[in-house]
Amino acid sequence: MSPRRSVAESRQTRSDILASGVRLASSEGLEGLTIGRLATVLNMSKSGVLGHFGSKEDLQLAVVDAAADIFTKEVADKARGVDPGLPKLLAMCRAWVSYLERRVFPGGCFFTAAASEFDDRPGRVRNAVAGLTTVWNRDLYRQTRTAMAAGDLPSDTDADQLVFEVTGVVLALNNALQLHRDTTAPTRARRALSRLIGHPITALTLLLSLRVA
Amino acid sequence: MSPRRSVAESRQTRSDILASGVRLASSEGLEGLTIGRLATVLNMSKSGVLGHFGSKEDLQLAVVDAAADIFTKEVADKARGVDPGLPKLLAMCRAWVSYLERRVFPGGCFFTAAASEFDDRPGRVRNAVAGLTTVWNRDLYRQTRTAMAAGDLPSDTDADQLVFEVTGVVLALNNALQLHRDTTAPTRARRALSRLIGHPITALTLLLSLRVA
Repeated sequence: MSPRRSVAESRQTRSDILASGVRLASSEGLEGLTIGRLATVLNMSKSGVLGHFGSKEDLQLAVVDAAADIFTKEVADKARGVDPGLPKLLAMCRAWVSYLERRVFPGGCFFTAAASEFDDRPGRVRNAVAGLTTVWNRDLYRQTRTAMAAGDLPSDTDADQLVFEVTGVVLALNNALQLHRDTTAPTRARRALSRLIGHPITALTLLLSLRVA
Repeated sequence: MSPRRSVAESRQTRSDILASGVRLASSEGLEGLTIGRLATVLNMSKSGVLGHFGSKEDLQLAVVDAAADIFTKEVADKARGVDPGLPKLLAMCRAWVSYLERRVFPGGCFFTAAASEFDDRPGRVRNAVAGLTTVWNRDLYRQTRTAMAAGDLPSDTDADQLVFEVTGVVLALNNALQLHRDTTAPTRARRALSRLIGHPITALTLLLSLRVA
């Protein structure tokens, strides 16, 4: 085996381990994600998995990063080309609902599950999850402020309050889908978000808000 | 030791095990709640714990029931004497926020954590958690309908939608308190609920709504 092939194979193996890790953790939790459990699922030796990730915590952190990449691709990137402010805020909310509706992760929102699991466990995993959700919330806040400055949202909007309530709608959606398998929930979530932001959260508004350069 | 004393002691031991179990599970999850872990915390033998609960699942179910008793005492009971309809709906919401603000469970809302942990694990624990939250949601729905019939909420209120959004606010509160230690969150939650229900969620409104018999 040439060294180059070996590096490429190693990278592929690492990527396969992480893909399985994200799926497993989304359904069963990050704490149950052990080197041994993954080795069994992937039909690998424990030392084979361990060679890619030094410790269980390193594995958990790598899985959180892999899940963040998926969230970026499936949610944040969908709003990337959209004008800042209200159009972008609407596009972010729409993509967020769609991500849960399409069950991008088999166990629902990866970060809601990870937050619930790690909020009482101080350490690097908790910090990573809290940091990622803070970055996302800050972006929602920033788009809200830009929309206010542009006159697209009332100038007396409490941006922190809006982000708090938007987050609540998405958490309720995740809960209704995961625990109660309630298929009416995405419609309810869109209705709630439309009322909160004062503009409809539909695919049509995205088309209307995308300005052709 | 008299048989009566032995029965009383056994009941006390069971109750001590459950109290520890609820605290542990609220912070570390129900899945990590093993007979061995509890035996260590309580300085008991594994067989001593096992004698009270036949299996790990029986232990988990008993802990869920014990947590439900605490929720009933700390939330549902606070609204028990209040007139049905809007006054009761407001009292339920107020008690729900207060329960999270006072950190009745060290790990935040017991049922939110259990739902997140078990929503992908079919079985008796999942059914118990889903059943308990459904009962609570149905009560919120019932009070909303009663308030509509009494003319205290608009007759075109979508009661299911209201319950969905109220749940979202409480989930956002739990998330903000647990993951971000955000002490402004209870005020934000009360503000959101007041706007949703169209009436202030304050202790004063409870006093005004309690009719002296």
